[in-house]
Amino acid sequence: MAGNSFGKLFKLTTFGESHGKAIGGVIDGCPAGITLDFEAIQHEMNRRKPGQSKIVTQRKEADEVEFYSGIFEGKTTGTPIGFLIHNTNQKSKDYSHIKDVYRPSHADYTYDKKYGVRDYRGGGRSSARETACRVVAGAIAKQFLKHVKINAFTSSVGDIFIDKPYQDLDFSKIESNDIRCPDAATAEKMIAKVSEVKKQGDTIGGTIMCVIQNVPAGIGEPVFDKLHAELGKAMLSINAVKGFEYGSGFCGAKMKGSEHNDKFNEDGSTQTNLSGGVQGGISNGMDIYFRVAFKPVATTLQKQETINSSGETVEMQGKGRHDPCVVPRAVPIVEAMAALVIADYMLLRRQETKDW
Amino acid sequence: MAGNSFGKLFKLTTFGESHGKAIGGVIDGCPAGITLDFEAIQHEMNRRKPGQSKIVTQRKEADEVEFYSGIFEGKTTGTPIGFLIHNTNQKSKDYSHIKDVYRPSHADYTYDKKYGVRDYRGGGRSSARETACRVVAGAIAKQFLKHVKINAFTSSVGDIFIDKPYQDLDFSKIESNDIRCPDAATAEKMIAKVSEVKKQGDTIGGTIMCVIQNVPAGIGEPVFDKLHAELGKAMLSINAVKGFEYGSGFCGAKMKGSEHNDKFNEDGSTQTNLSGGVQGGISNGMDIYFRVAFKPVATTLQKQETINSSGETVEMQGKGRHDPCVVPRAVPIVEAMAALVIADYMLLRRQETKDW
Amino acid sequence: MAGNSFGKLFKLTTFGESHGKAIGGVIDGCPAGITLDFEAIQHEMNRRKPGQSKIVTQRKEADEVEFYSGIFEGKTTGTPIGFLIHNTNQKSKDYSHIKDVYRPSHADYTYDKKYGVRDYRGGGRSSARETACRVVAGAIAKQFLKHVKINAFTSSVGDIFIDKPYQDLDFSKIESNDIRCPDAATAEKMIAKVSEVKKQGDTIGGTIMCVIQNVPAGIGEPVFDKLHAELGKAMLSINAVKGFEYGSGFCGAKMKGSEHNDKFNEDGSTQTNLSGGVQGGISNGMDIYFRVAFKPVATTLQKQETINSSGETVEMQGKGRHDPCVVPRAVPIVEAMAALVIADYMLLRRQETKDW
Amino acid sequence: MAGNSFGKLFKLTTFGESHGKAIGGVIDGCPAGITLDFEAIQHEMNRRKPGQSKIVTQRKEADEVEFYSGIFEGKTTGTPIGFLIHNTNQKSKDYSHIKDVYRPSHADYTYDKKYGVRDYRGGGRSSARETACRVVAGAIAKQFLKHVKINAFTSSVGDIFIDKPYQDLDFSKIESNDIRCPDAATAEKMIAKVSEVKKQGDTIGGTIMCVIQNVPAGIGEPVFDKLHAELGKAMLSINAVKGFEYGSGFCGAKMKGSEHNDKFNEDGSTQTNLSGGVQGGISNGMDIYFRVAFKPVATTLQKQETINSSGETVEMQGKGRHDPCVVPRAVPIVEAMAALVIADYMLLRRQETKDW
Repeated sequence: MAGNSFGKLFKLTTFGESHGKAIGGVIDGCPAGITLDFEAIQHEMNRRKPGQSKIVTQRKEADEVEFYSGIFEGKTTGTPIGFLIHNTNQKSKDYSHIKDVYRPSHADYTYDKKYGVRDYRGGGRSSARETACRVVAGAIAKQFLKHVKINAFTSSVGDIFIDKPYQDLDFSKIESNDIRCPDAATAEKMIAKVSEVKKQGDTIGGTIMCVIQNVPAGIGEPVFDKLHAELGKAMLSINAVKGFEYGSGFCGAKMKGSEHNDKFNEDGSTQTNLSGGVQGGISNGMDIYFRVAFKPVATTLQKQETINSSGETVEMQGKGRHDPCVVPRAVPIVEAMAALVIADYMLLRRQETKDW
Repeated sequence: MAGNSFGKLFKLTTFGESHGKAIGGVIDGCPAGITLDFEAIQHEMNRRKPGQSKIVTQRKEADEVEFYSGIFEGKTTGTPIGFLIHNTNQKSKDYSHIKDVYRPSHADYTYDKKYGVRDYRGGGRSSARETACRVVAGAIAKQFLKHVKINAFTSSVGDIFIDKPYQDLDFSKIESNDIRCPDAATAEKMIAKVSEVKKQGDTIGGTIMCVIQNVPAGIGEPVFDKLHAELGKAMLSINAVKGFEYGSGFCGAKMKGSEHNDKFNEDGSTQTNLSGGVQGGISNGMDIYFRVAFKPVATTLQKQETINSSGETVEMQGKGRHDPCVVPRAVPIVEAMAALVIADYMLLRRQETKDW
Repeated sequence: MAGNSFGKLFKLTTFGESHGKAIGGVIDGCPAGITLDFEAIQHEMNRRKPGQSKIVTQRKEADEVEFYSGIFEGKTTGTPIGFLIHNTNQKSKDYSHIKDVYRPSHADYTYDKKYGVRDYRGGGRSSARETACRVVAGAIAKQFLKHVKINAFTSSVGDIFIDKPYQDLDFSKIESNDIRCPDAATAEKMIAKVSEVKKQGDTIGGTIMCVIQNVPAGIGEPVFDKLHAELGKAMLSINAVKGFEYGSGFCGAKMKGSEHNDKFNEDGSTQTNLSGGVQGGISNGMDIYFRVAFKPVATTLQKQETINSSGETVEMQGKGRHDPCVVPRAVPIVEAMAALVIADYMLLRRQETKDW
Repeated sequence: MAGNSFGKLFKLTTFGESHGKAIGGVIDGCPAGITLDFEAIQHEMNRRKPGQSKIVTQRKEADEVEFYSGIFEGKTTGTPIGFLIHNTNQKSKDYSHIKDVYRPSHADYTYDKKYGVRDYRGGGRSSARETACRVVAGAIAKQFLKHVKINAFTSSVGDIFIDKPYQDLDFSKIESNDIRCPDAATAEKMIAKVSEVKKQGDTIGGTIMCVIQNVPAGIGEPVFDKLHAELGKAMLSINAVKGFEYGSGFCGAKMKGSEHNDKFNEDGSTQTNLSGGVQGGISNGMDIYFRVAFKPVATTLQKQETINSSGETVEMQGKGRHDPCVVPRAVPIVEAMAALVIADYMLLRRQETKDW
């Protein structure tokens, strides 16, 4: 109930604060007998970790995962996989200046209202550092979902958007630039934008698009646990996310039925895919795609007035090493959460596939 | 797991197909001792029911709720509340022509892929008729949330939008027109638009905005079960929904941190509210507001080509009595789902409020 | 959370008070495509229903199940199965004399302490009438578990015990007498005992043994959700149950390891079965068997002193139509709960059975 | 679903194999603001740990808990508490001889059938070493349940029983002897029995009684999640447990209603307590007490014939350092599981205690 677990049959529970000794998690329900590729896991960690390029925070973290259980002789055993990621670069003193301060548009105030006590160092539990654990679990889910392809990429930064449909993009180019945009020309503009904002000590928002391919038809649960509803929750649970749309999304709300309906081909595929690969909450075998909105990072390097826990006005200024734009580092997190949802729903599906 | 339940402590489970004898549900976890206002429940049902105005389906359903348990001498007893809503207007023969047909952008194809069998009459379980049960539970949740105010309204139809911030609207006017838009001039245009589309045998999409007021600070769970993530899932689980955004939403993704941060007043309230009343997944005491996108209804009265379950191309045409636009009837559903989420999270909150 | 649901993938939620209009339930997660045998369901209901023989309560209830959803053309559709059982013989006036009275060893006092309000008529929600819903769900689970055989029977009444191992009993004889004991000579003594107790206006306890056969090896979850732990919880959730033991049970606690270990045959079966078919919480393919203790019914026809809700001493006397011994009517309930557990764990098992 | 979590609002998830680097767990839902007594936690660990006396295994483990999160400046923060217990004495080579061997009445065979792969070293996940994590969580739950007293003790070893009601025992004497029996004379006989069995290279079973005092009336959920049903499941989930009974238990099944009913005093307490403090699944304010049966440890030092994974007969012999009787070390585990159940149900109760 306390909100630190995700999934039904493939379940991730995370723990840890940004400036404790370590963060970690438990994956319960991973099927037995999967040979794990540990380099692939670390590769995903590296895509998320700080310090990877000039346009992200220059904080340094090794972000190496240590596994404690559920794996024997390189294979999953079906028992829970416990892991830790040590916080090697805690520098707690950096945060003493905000001990009693409620930073604007952060979770300091609300955590205090909820719990009456909080680990104020670096956001504590509310820090996006927690998402490193999601990337571990997502990387394992990806290995388990061999045939499914999940590609997320930066689709906009501020008002710079990719102006092509995703079908015209080459996903193999996503990792070819620091902003993780597969369109080279747009990527360049986005990087310039982030650099400019960074110089101003400011931050900027953006969107990520995610495309999931090769999910068979028939995955998803009806009514409350529709596949896209769970994907939406997964994305909205990522720090800084403000919106989610799939298929035609908010544009679909402007359309007429005669324009919006996806005509069937005789093999059950559809000629258009405004449905976004999901109908009635269940996959139809077409590409599942969605878009996620991220707000600008709340910590800027500009001076801001705010209040402290006594309700007094104080002045504060963020110190170095913050992300000017979360989007490039959020790409692997979006993929990880998508992988967790699909893995979970694929396992749920299994109960229906065998004859009785 | 099978997706027909919603909530943790205040839990709704629904059952029923659009053309079975009845639909119904069970509310488990409603606190004891609440005196129920049955007229208020029926009032919410009437706001959702078909046939209520010229711009909705002319199908007739009494949509009267029959309660079987959990209520004694007018008060809730803390035990589960079981209820039925009889399907009085089934007309099953209307649907014989679609027995083997997969209607475009409906759930016929995906239900068949998932279950291998389906009640094809009127969408069966995938019909929005199921949402009547949500309105029952939401109406009870509203009574339990005495101090919280939940107001949803139509914010756009096609490309006709309300062009004012919600603070300038008079929520007492929501019920004063058939489209449920509190701005009279815009409402008129919306109604004209729906009427026009209806004449063409077509349908149109729209958006609903919802504002939740008087939720105390400190409600919500961190990490995966953030308050807005659960609201998002709740909304995305409603039939025809394609997107969800809260606070600054997708617009926030275009902004800079220096523009987006909500400055605190000394009492902990904020001067702006781009956060949408939620920070780090926890309410901050400000208004919670969000927007939900609905696609156009898939059933039009125009001829369409589609396929049947043998993969053959067939021609089909929707018959009368369908909604040209779901939005006005969806307003009470959005409110109901919002009420369920808030009630549930208020109950979860209680564990933290007493000293140890 | 509120305790009215059972199961993970095959989930039953029940509602209803003994003297409301109806009791009912929802089965969520029953696989699609199962052709239901409605007579078999009613047969199980008849085994539980009052008035079936001279040694049970003479109250009359038709106990006919009405299904509302999840079944189409005789087959399950995979969507939730909602059902009602109408309370045809409510006679609420019978209970006015206990409105404010706390009957000894009933749940009147505790329900009042928990909820502050209760439906006092006939025990309300705490009445064993609720178990009729379990029998419906169990009967469906049995149909889904074609190959598994579940046989429960009365193993003792008071101090009259069957003195044979279950392997020497003919389960086809269970229904041949009113007490549901497959050993004719013992059955006769048990029936005489119940009749004698009944004449005294008294009641008596007993035990039920249950044997589950043909469960494949490998069913069950480790650690907290061990197969026998879930069976234990299922049985302890039945009204009047005071104890549960499986395999060697409490006798095993007196034994030495050298006596207790079950030696393997070369095919993986074991020569003895003190383990009761479960090792480490997982089935080993041998018979699963357990024993359940039921206390004597608390309502006797003798005068008793007790208190009312004001703490005053009052005299009360049970009126006719109560069971002198619950055990014969509890046999189908034990089987139903066993079927629910096995069905649920068989479905959970499926996720592991397919190669990746 | 995969069975490694326990609890609803106060939830423990454990991971780890007996011979991995560490075992550990996550406690999610512990209220914020509790000042933790770490010595008290270690004290409970020491009561469970191997090597503490002559009548338990002589294996050495420090069993020191390392906390990683959820605690700040000595207080719980409401966020998940992650912890590890390092396995300092793994000696994996000890187990090479059983790599392919299915030990009788262990979980080797069933884990293989379920998962197809297993960490065979020392029982892996099926080892009772996992229970150390339960003791950590139980020790924290105990601190949170300040007013509730939980005392478990050894009530029998083989056929040596305490022959007094628990009311005549002095719980402060439980820790005064190695077997954890508060009756000195009986304790002596029990210890002699265990020593004798140990000399024979054999093992022996026993029972533990647990008494929970000061639980207020009104705790528990009706129907499936009755308080005693959850306690039963908790106990049955402990390694080697074969049975559970509460209140009158199996003896109650031999009694008449006129003997068994607990008469009320005018203050709502009862003159006798055959109900065991629970009526209708809800606490009535009286002592809650139950008894748990443990089988003899399966690993003996005597030669046994068994099979290997190829179905061939092989001879095996347990090596040193096993417990001749689990009961003394299981006493703190029983208390820990009882504390987890009570803490969880106390938190569930909170939702009902505030006026609406």
